[in-house]
Amino acid sequence: MFSCWLSRLCRGLSTPTGRVTHLIQGSLSRRLMLSSQRRIPELSSFVARTNTCGELRSSHLGQEVTLCGWIQYRRQNIFLVLRDFHGLVQVVIPQDESAASVKKILCEAPMESVVQVSGTVISRPPGQENPKMPTGEIEIKVKSAQLLNTCKKLPFEIKDFVKKTEALRLQYRYLDLRSFQMQYNLRLRSRMVMKMREYLCNLHGFVDIETPTLFKRTPGGAKEFVIPSREPGKFYCLPQSPQQFKQLLMVGGLDRYFQVARCYRDEGSRPDRQPEFTQIVDISDVFRNTKVGFLQDALSKPQGTVKAICISEGTKYLKRKDIESLRKLAADHFNQEVLPVFPKANRNWNSPVAKSIMEEQRSELIRLMEIQEDGVVLLTAGEHRKACSVLGKLRLECADLLEARGLVLRDPALFSFLWVVDFPLFLPKEENPGELESAHHPFTAPHPSDIHLLHTEPKQVRSQHYDLVLNGNEIGGGSIRIHDAELQRYILATLLKEDVKLLSHLLQALDFGAPPHGGIALGLDRLICLVTGAPSIRDVIAFPKSFRGHDLMSNAPDSLPPEELKPYHIQVSWPADSEAEKSSLNQPYHPES
Amino acid sequence: MFSCWLSRLCRGLSTPTGRVTHLIQGSLSRRLMLSSQRRIPELSSFVARTNTCGELRSSHLGQEVTLCGWIQYRRQNIFLVLRDFHGLVQVVIPQDESAASVKKILCEAPMESVVQVSGTVISRPPGQENPKMPTGEIEIKVKSAQLLNTCKKLPFEIKDFVKKTEALRLQYRYLDLRSFQMQYNLRLRSRMVMKMREYLCNLHGFVDIETPTLFKRTPGGAKEFVIPSREPGKFYCLPQSPQQFKQLLMVGGLDRYFQVARCYRDEGSRPDRQPEFTQIVDISDVFRNTKVGFLQDALSKPQGTVKAICISEGTKYLKRKDIESLRKLAADHFNQEVLPVFPKANRNWNSPVAKSIMEEQRSELIRLMEIQEDGVVLLTAGEHRKACSVLGKLRLECADLLEARGLVLRDPALFSFLWVVDFPLFLPKEENPGELESAHHPFTAPHPSDIHLLHTEPKQVRSQHYDLVLNGNEIGGGSIRIHDAELQRYILATLLKEDVKLLSHLLQALDFGAPPHGGIALGLDRLICLVTGAPSIRDVIAFPKSFRGHDLMSNAPDSLPPEELKPYHIQVSWPADSEAEKSSLNQPYHPES
Repeated sequence: MFSCWLSRLCRGLSTPTGRVTHLIQGSLSRRLMLSSQRRIPELSSFVARTNTCGELRSSHLGQEVTLCGWIQYRRQNIFLVLRDFHGLVQVVIPQDESAASVKKILCEAPMESVVQVSGTVISRPPGQENPKMPTGEIEIKVKSAQLLNTCKKLPFEIKDFVKKTEALRLQYRYLDLRSFQMQYNLRLRSRMVMKMREYLCNLHGFVDIETPTLFKRTPGGAKEFVIPSREPGKFYCLPQSPQQFKQLLMVGGLDRYFQVARCYRDEGSRPDRQPEFTQIVDISDVFRNTKVGFLQDALSKPQGTVKAICISEGTKYLKRKDIESLRKLAADHFNQEVLPVFPKANRNWNSPVAKSIMEEQRSELIRLMEIQEDGVVLLTAGEHRKACSVLGKLRLECADLLEARGLVLRDPALFSFLWVVDFPLFLPKEENPGELESAHHPFTAPHPSDIHLLHTEPKQVRSQHYDLVLNGNEIGGGSIRIHDAELQRYILATLLKEDVKLLSHLLQALDFGAPPHGGIALGLDRLICLVTGAPSIRDVIAFPKSFRGHDLMSNAPDSLPPEELKPYHIQVSWPADSEAEKSSLNQPYHPES
Repeated sequence: MFSCWLSRLCRGLSTPTGRVTHLIQGSLSRRLMLSSQRRIPELSSFVARTNTCGELRSSHLGQEVTLCGWIQYRRQNIFLVLRDFHGLVQVVIPQDESAASVKKILCEAPMESVVQVSGTVISRPPGQENPKMPTGEIEIKVKSAQLLNTCKKLPFEIKDFVKKTEALRLQYRYLDLRSFQMQYNLRLRSRMVMKMREYLCNLHGFVDIETPTLFKRTPGGAKEFVIPSREPGKFYCLPQSPQQFKQLLMVGGLDRYFQVARCYRDEGSRPDRQPEFTQIVDISDVFRNTKVGFLQDALSKPQGTVKAICISEGTKYLKRKDIESLRKLAADHFNQEVLPVFPKANRNWNSPVAKSIMEEQRSELIRLMEIQEDGVVLLTAGEHRKACSVLGKLRLECADLLEARGLVLRDPALFSFLWVVDFPLFLPKEENPGELESAHHPFTAPHPSDIHLLHTEPKQVRSQHYDLVLNGNEIGGGSIRIHDAELQRYILATLLKEDVKLLSHLLQALDFGAPPHGGIALGLDRLICLVTGAPSIRDVIAFPKSFRGHDLMSNAPDSLPPEELKPYHIQVSWPADSEAEKSSLNQPYHPES
């Protein structure tokens, strides 16, 4: 139900192609609004303008209008194109002597200056209509004009076709925000969040509650920002997620809670598209008696498996060097050997390893994987997670290769949702596989059918965690939580060996009549990214930080004088090398030494 | 227009009396929802229950229902009252042998345990209806029951009449949230914010944009929390308000922006009701030739003034000791002398100072202030702001006194809005009156008619700042901002002597075609406080901090081990006394020394 609704929402709000590359200027905001609600919002209430630049049509002919906007361009001192957030409109600069002052203003103002014009909506002369422009049938015959602000020489032009580096865009973010693409992304984000709110509040009675951002360090919260308080040695933390508060609200009877919440994680930006989960076929049984060395090796180990993916029409579109580069990628990045198998024996790979696959194994493989004649199988072996990771990556690489050759595999207008369930509750610790850690977090409830295994085989217990995937990208996840204090204590203290004292308030809350509860969190940035087709989450955030967490516009984080740190009872511990650097700076300058 | 709409919103959402003290349990959420929208939200979608406890009526008779809730109380092992966020319902515990297991569950579960029951809605026997309870005509004949979670002994009962200290309420916030009053406050807040969003987004095309919380220190931002980054000596700050971002969004063409934003101020909680502004009458001219010493003194100084307020029916309701206590308050807290004047000479105050007010001054005063016979005038003199502050405070005190005597002065159901305008742009610095500081902040635009005074008489310049007051409480404020970079530079550098380098990104943004712009921010906590009649803003926030900024539930802020501070290149500077304490703890124990 949830993903159905989300799918409708995405389709309703995004443009027909799903990827907004060539926008017809001016029509986007209107389309956005029309698609998401019936009543058209009043965009010129409270302000000096009577209309927006983008809304004027033949139906407005003869109307006296006042418009405000930026000067987009000027042609031969006769025409001027004015832009606001809604679109573009052509303004005719008066040429008669009596309007000399208006002409002077409109001809002398630099590009991107802000002007207010008043005049009449008139038809363009026959043959001069511009069908590519939503306001292309009309123009404005100006009577008066006012220069509201002049613009100095810009670091780049506000035109979509002008290429600029991301660093420059971030440094002058307020200029970049004037682009149609950024306007579209941010306004769509706002509409989309509003639709979500209407769905939750108005249709289903959810309650929107703000939880604090100044909180306490949670166990294992190594990625939480710390905030010194005015009490010596005492720190707040910015929570990684409101997950504890969510649970406490459920204990507090605030049924049907939601929040558009900020999450703070002190880690470098990750690329926002990752292969999250892949469907693969397990073919270990086919190769139980193989003679191929690396397959034998893998199957002899406890977690060992042989896995494969099939690339339909692979023989038609992939070349020998493509297959080689895929094998190299697997070897270089995953240290995994990958073997291609072709259904037809005579098209077999010219390699000694490949040839050692027996004919009956090949037939069995073709049967199991339902391979067509022109398919190619990529086969690997090894530890289960590693084998899955490498094939997941190769699957995406193949898709890119095939699409580059003209095959349409992924319809950009299609929103395909997928629920991923039955995760394990625990994983062996990487540094010490004898101990357990939570696959997600220690508050996830075990699967009801597996509770009996908690005391005997905890590794076999499935969790009630679920992930939501859109077009191969994880966009959200959640879980049913543990509401039983004893079970929570057992998992924290006995299985995970955590210090339960740090979570005493949560455990106590579970003791006081906590109802069974669960929830889900969507990654809004990534979801909007997928809907708009933006290449990076930085394109759907108004003021994003750079990859290294810097604000390139204001230069945050920045140095502070020691006296400003004093009230917080902290001082900077300069690392040894920068200390040396500092002292060398403080050295008197002796050119002769 | 704005305050009209806000007034309608407040009236629409709050209860008829404006102060929710005696709630009819169960009806509140429904009334809340009905009043704010036409379509009733579906409260039992996605969950196991078929209905909420609070919604069942005679119209549901005969229906098979499944309910979930907390056990509110139990009577003689026959009746049990079940509570959810929507209200209360009576459940009949089956007494026949065949339902022994159901009876056992429902009779043995401690209060506040969570149960799920299924059964039929039946009429209460004639005479047993409870008209005070919205579900009082029906009860549930239970067929099956399930104990979802047991509850241990609570620190206090979840009943509104049980008095608890605020510290206890904050420590067990998740229990306090189960109270009808907290449920009402938080759900009303959610609905009210949703109505605001619908008004802004759907009716007027505003765009909801999130601005960053990790930002850079702003000049004069002494109350901003600092956040160390992983770069040595570099800090982020939590912004006091998104004011710089607001302006940058305007420069970026994100016309009609709004946000429900968090503001972070590192200061103690203020009481949430303060005398903000008062209407008073200036009567300086009456006393130009006075013989009263403190009036003479005051009028001889440049900012000196004589001001008065009139308390209608004061002689009827106020006693001599009331007037004395008011004078004492003015003397103790404001160091101001206050003189009472009675219209009738024979009722004059028995004090040498009072008697020295000449009869003609008294008559003039009565005429000017339109004083009725039973009125009392409170008169003070001194520096303008001080005189206003003390009279503002006394006015509120008098109102409290008169209301305590049974007079109804302030209708709690009435929402009276007031705009305060024409503030001065600058004030003399308190520590150095020869220099200027901004009355609000340096980005406020001067009043257009006063711009010529900026170079000659800056103290006389009015600002384009405006405050919105509801029932005497400031609930919001805003301003038209400076969009001209030269004017902004002149005010920052020449008039305020600020270091403009720290604001170079903002000044540059103004240079690049900033449109004229302005806005307003409402204090949501305080507004909801006034609408719900809550005594403190802590009653309209789910997880508030205590007066000293502590989270009494989780014990934040908390200590951190030094190794967790290492990645941030900071260490704690322990104050001398706590250092001594620490070293004494580290001393070996020598009982003989």
